[in-house]
Amino acid sequence: MRLSRYFLPTLRENPAEAQIVSHRLMLRAGLIRQSAAGIYSWLPLGLRVLKNIERIVREEQDRSGAVELLMPTIQSADLWRESGRYDAYGKEMLRITDRHEREMLFGPTNEELITAIVRDSIKSYRDLPLNLYHIQWKFRDEVRPRFGVMRGREFLMKDAYSFDIDKEAARRAYEKMFVAYLRTYARLGLKAIPMAADTGPIGGDMSHEFIILADTGESAVFCHGDLVDYDILGTEVDFDGDLSPIIKRWTGLYAATDEKHDEARFEAEVPANKRIAARGIEVGHIFYFGTKYSKPMGAVVAGPNGESIELEMGSYGIGVSRLMGAIIEASHDDNGIIWPDSVAPFKVALINLKSGDATVDGACDKLYAALEAAGVDVLYDDTGERAGSKFATADLIGLPWQLHVGPRGLANGVVEVKSRKTGERREIAIDDVVDVLVKA
Amino acid sequence: MRLSRYFLPTLRENPAEAQIVSHRLMLRAGLIRQSAAGIYSWLPLGLRVLKNIERIVREEQDRSGAVELLMPTIQSADLWRESGRYDAYGKEMLRITDRHEREMLFGPTNEELITAIVRDSIKSYRDLPLNLYHIQWKFRDEVRPRFGVMRGREFLMKDAYSFDIDKEAARRAYEKMFVAYLRTYARLGLKAIPMAADTGPIGGDMSHEFIILADTGESAVFCHGDLVDYDILGTEVDFDGDLSPIIKRWTGLYAATDEKHDEARFEAEVPANKRIAARGIEVGHIFYFGTKYSKPMGAVVAGPNGESIELEMGSYGIGVSRLMGAIIEASHDDNGIIWPDSVAPFKVALINLKSGDATVDGACDKLYAALEAAGVDVLYDDTGERAGSKFATADLIGLPWQLHVGPRGLANGVVEVKSRKTGERREIAIDDVVDVLVKA
Repeated sequence: MRLSRYFLPTLRENPAEAQIVSHRLMLRAGLIRQSAAGIYSWLPLGLRVLKNIERIVREEQDRSGAVELLMPTIQSADLWRESGRYDAYGKEMLRITDRHEREMLFGPTNEELITAIVRDSIKSYRDLPLNLYHIQWKFRDEVRPRFGVMRGREFLMKDAYSFDIDKEAARRAYEKMFVAYLRTYARLGLKAIPMAADTGPIGGDMSHEFIILADTGESAVFCHGDLVDYDILGTEVDFDGDLSPIIKRWTGLYAATDEKHDEARFEAEVPANKRIAARGIEVGHIFYFGTKYSKPMGAVVAGPNGESIELEMGSYGIGVSRLMGAIIEASHDDNGIIWPDSVAPFKVALINLKSGDATVDGACDKLYAALEAAGVDVLYDDTGERAGSKFATADLIGLPWQLHVGPRGLANGVVEVKSRKTGERREIAIDDVVDVLVKA
Repeated sequence: MRLSRYFLPTLRENPAEAQIVSHRLMLRAGLIRQSAAGIYSWLPLGLRVLKNIERIVREEQDRSGAVELLMPTIQSADLWRESGRYDAYGKEMLRITDRHEREMLFGPTNEELITAIVRDSIKSYRDLPLNLYHIQWKFRDEVRPRFGVMRGREFLMKDAYSFDIDKEAARRAYEKMFVAYLRTYARLGLKAIPMAADTGPIGGDMSHEFIILADTGESAVFCHGDLVDYDILGTEVDFDGDLSPIIKRWTGLYAATDEKHDEARFEAEVPANKRIAARGIEVGHIFYFGTKYSKPMGAVVAGPNGESIELEMGSYGIGVSRLMGAIIEASHDDNGIIWPDSVAPFKVALINLKSGDATVDGACDKLYAALEAAGVDVLYDDTGERAGSKFATADLIGLPWQLHVGPRGLANGVVEVKSRKTGERREIAIDDVVDVLVKA
C-alpha cells in the first residue's frame, strides 16, 4: 500500500482524553477515532490489526473443533424473558423499542439466542457434542466508558457456546476451549494466565478468566510466580486426545481474580517469594454453567433410550477488540507501538528518504513491487514528508521492519533494514533485501 | 469438514412463511434462521457463503483503490442533526436512548459519520482523492420485513464514500465504483444492469442502481434488451486509466428504474422488440451528491492557493447479505441451490454411500484427507443417513461437485463425480479424482 493513497491520520500530540498508553497510541497511530462515548471507528491501519487478531482467534477456534456461525446484533426481549435475564441484566443492556413498539435489545452476549437456535434445530444426543461460536459486535452500556477500546461500549467479541449430553462431555468441551485460549494468546504474543474467576451474570459453577499482568489493568489478581514463566504451548495439540495434563499444569498453581481470591489459601500454597499480587487485564472468560439456560428454555434432546435430556452448556468469550489494547500495553516503547509479527498491519515500512529524487523513487518502486510480488505486506511511505518525520511515523505505527532507501546507500548498492523491536540497523545489498525480508 | 461434526440443520418441508424461492431454500438448506422479524442468524453454511461474497466485494473495492475501515453500528443522533437528516429520516431509523438519556441510533447508512471522520482528519487537497469503505451491519426498521434476507431489517452492507476536490475528480471516483460494481457482480456469477435511478433520502443529482432481472424482484424496471446480453468485464481494468468507454457502453442504452422511467423516451429510444419491462432486484446503488453533507458539516480542505474548498462526495452501496438471496433467485432448480463456484460454501460434497463399511469408510477418509491437502474445500457426509437422503441434501445445499463413493465403484477402482449444475455424472479412477477436482 502506498501511503499517499492510504488514510493514516496520525497525531503528533498526546490526546488529552487518553489516560493509558494503549489508548494514546491507538489514537496517535491512526488506528481508531472515537465516534461517541465508548464507541470507536476503526481506521484502516487499526482494522488490519483487528482482522489479524480475529483471524488468529478464528483459526484456533476452528482447530479445537468449534464451528462458526453468526448471530445478529439485535435480539428480541422475549428471548431474554425465557431465561429470566431481561429484567435481571440491568442498565448495561442497551434496550430498544422498534417502530411496532416491540422490545428489542443490542446483544451484550448470546446465551439465549444460541440456545434457541440449537433447541429448534437438534433432536438427538447423536447431534452432540456441539460448540458453536461467532465473532460479532456487542454492546454494553458502560456507565463510564474509558481506556479506549479496553472498556468501550460497542466491542468485538468472540463468543462460543458448547452443548453436551452430560457433565463429563461438558468438561471436555471446557478443556478444549481452555487449551484453545492458551494457544490463541500465545500466537498473539501475549502471556495470559488462566485464573479461577467469579461467574457473574452468566452464572455457573466453573469459570476461568485469562489475565494479562499489566500495571494498567483494571482488576487485582493473585498468582504463583511460576505461572508467569510457563512456556507457551507448541502447535501440536490433539484436541481429540486427553487434554487434562495441560489443564492440570495450568490450574495446579494458585491463580485467582480479586473476587475469588482467598488470602489464607494464597499464603498457605504459595511461598512468599513466589507470591504475585498485581493488576491484570482480562482478555478472556470461560464458563461452565450446566443447564442454567437449557432448563428454562426447554433445550432438550432425546437420549440413547429416548429419554429427554437437558443440554449441558458452557460459554467462552474473548474480547477481540480489547485484545488490541492489551497487545499495545504489553508491547510498546517511548516511540510508539511494537507489533508482534502475527498481528502487524503490514510487515514492512518502506521509507523513501528522498521522494522526488528519480533514482530513489525508482529504487523504491522496484522494491515495493518485488516485496508485494513475494507476498510481503508493505506500507510504502512515498509522501513528500521529510525523512525525520517518516522515521517517527514508522516508529509510532510499529511495523516490525523498516526499510530505509536513500541516495547515499543506493550509491553503494545497499539499503538499511531496521528492526522496530530491537532497534538494530543493518545495511543489506539491494539485491538481497527482498529475500531477507521474506524470511524475517 | 465432516458433516458429523458440523451444524447443518436442513428442513425437509417448505417453510410456510417463505414466499419466494431464495427464502425457502435458505431456510431449507440450513443457511439462515430467523431470530426476530427481519433479523436472521447465519448458520455455518450460510456464513461461509456470506464471507465469500464479502471477500469478492472487498477485493474489487481494494482493486479500484478504495480503502477499508470500519465504522461502528451505533451512532450519535447529534451527528445526524448536523446534516439535518435526524428528523427527516423517518421511522426506518432505529432510534435508541442510552442509559444517560442520550439519543443514539443504529446506523442505516454512514454519510454523516464518515464525513465527520474525514473532516477531522484531513486538511489539504493533497490528501485527496479518498474513497473509504466499510462492510458493516446496518439496520433499517422496515414496516413489513419480507422475502428473507432480501428485505430484512438487520443486513450487511458495503458502503463506500468518496471525497474529492472538484466535480471532475468526483466523477472519476463515481466511474471507478461503477466499474468496480460491474466486476463484482460478474465475479459473483450475476448479470446486474446499471440503471438510472432516483436518489431518495441520500440526495444528489447522479445515481445508478444495479439491477438483477428476476420475476421475484420488488421493483419495475425498463431497459434495452441488448444490455442483458452485454458480456462481462475482463479482469484487466486499469483503474488509473480512462474508464469512460466502459461507462459510455453501459449507459448508452436506455435503462431506468420505475421512479426514473420515462415511457416516451423509452419508446423513442428502444425498438419495440428490444423493450424489456420487467421486475428487478436492486443489488447496488451509487450516488454522486456533491456537497450535500460536506457543506452543512463543514468538511473542507485547503486548496492549492489556501482557499477553503467544500468536499465533493459520493456514496456507493452493495447489499452483501441481500446478494445471497439474489444469487439463489438466479441459480437454483427444483432440487435446491446451484452455487456459482466463486461463492460456494464448499467446492465438493464427498458422499459416503455406505457409512460403517470399513472399505468405503477407509476410501472416503483417504479422499477427504487428500482433497483437503490439495486445498479443496470438502464437506464430507460421514453420517449414517441412507444414500438417497445424502444425495437430496447435497442437491439441496448446492455444492458445485459431488463425489459419490460406494462399494460397487470401489471394487472397480472408480468413484462417481457429479456436476450439480449440469447433473452430469462421470466415473473416474480413484487415483485421478483429486486431480480432476482440483482442476474442476
